Amino acid sequence: MDITAEMVKDLRERTGIGMMECKSALAESNGDMEKAIEILRKKGHARAQAKASREASQGVVGAYVHMNGRIGVLVEVNCESDFVARNAEFQELVKEIAMQICAAKPRYVSSAEIPPDVLAAEKEIIKGQLGDMKKPPEIMEKIVQGKLGKFYEEVCLLDQPYIREDKIKVRDLVTQAVAKIGENIKVRRFARFEIGQE
Amino acid sequence: MDITAEMVKDLRERTGIGMMECKSALAESNGDMEKAIEILRKKGHARAQAKASREASQGVVGAYVHMNGRIGVLVEVNCESDFVARNAEFQELVKEIAMQICAAKPRYVSSAEIPPDVLAAEKEIIKGQLGDMKKPPEIMEKIVQGKLGKFYEEVCLLDQPYIREDKIKVRDLVTQAVAKIGENIKVRRFARFEIGQE
Repeated sequence: MDITAEMVKDLRERTGIGMMECKSALAESNGDMEKAIEILRKKGHARAQAKASREASQGVVGAYVHMNGRIGVLVEVNCESDFVARNAEFQELVKEIAMQICAAKPRYVSSAEIPPDVLAAEKEIIKGQLGDMKKPPEIMEKIVQGKLGKFYEEVCLLDQPYIREDKIKVRDLVTQAVAKIGENIKVRRFARFEIGQE
Repeated sequence: MDITAEMVKDLRERTGIGMMECKSALAESNGDMEKAIEILRKKGHARAQAKASREASQGVVGAYVHMNGRIGVLVEVNCESDFVARNAEFQELVKEIAMQICAAKPRYVSSAEIPPDVLAAEKEIIKGQLGDMKKPPEIMEKIVQGKLGKFYEEVCLLDQPYIREDKIKVRDLVTQAVAKIGENIKVRRFARFEIGQE
């Protein structure tokens, strides 16, 4: 199948990825646009991994106030350059993350931030719920880890299902943006205040 | 001197305080508007004190983003009723406090929030700066307390000089609002994020 300039342009607009990469993805997918996006996502993900070690010291602090000021969110998202910080797509990502925090009430950015005592208490609760299953300790540990994953999905922003598309996690949303924008992007910190709540 | 209805109206508009109180303040100040405001402020402060023990569980979360998102502030200010939370004057106060936090970078709401180790370290620094002044310990303690006041003015929001009127403190701004609005008002918490800063 012939890959037209029109198709390449279309794919570029949908992914933000370079022309040559789009052309070769379309060749690989035999002109199937959705498959080509899949291919680029996989590559994009690989690209994002390579960028994860680069320093992200620029960025944007975004705010979102909901319900007449009953809930407010502040979030800092970092990127590598001031140029990207001023990019509309990056700013849109920041806004999406702020709305995610508003709606889904995470307590930490990632599981690495959970204080050891909170984690230990959660493990105890899980073990209590499981009761004596008469399984070897290493099996029990695996079951506990699985249940902890559910806990992370609840309290860690990056592990939460994205509010607009619950098949992906917020982490994937960020990874897609990294692939599209071409810079390392990190959610650094957030605050969420709600009247009458802790 | 005659106290005209015009003068009372003018004072009411400037202070938000009731007609009878304005009239008697003007009588007391012999028609001097500035003195009357002083008198009302003193009374307002007394009124505010009486209200300070009433519960403030309603309120507004305000956000302020500055310099294209390089600095962001989130602040929760509580009042007693949802009615006041929706009041424009109250919301204006919240905005002013958010701008204060943005510009003057406080680290705590009040000195009661300073962690003991931070306070102890600050006292050590002050003592080191003073050197051996050959004074009795109780005099030294008084000097240290005086210097600590300067530290509070720097790091505690309520002790900071108000950015628009540095003769009053942010605490006075809140007290004035309490007197004007007639409900207990409390700055509960805030967050201030700046790109590239702690």
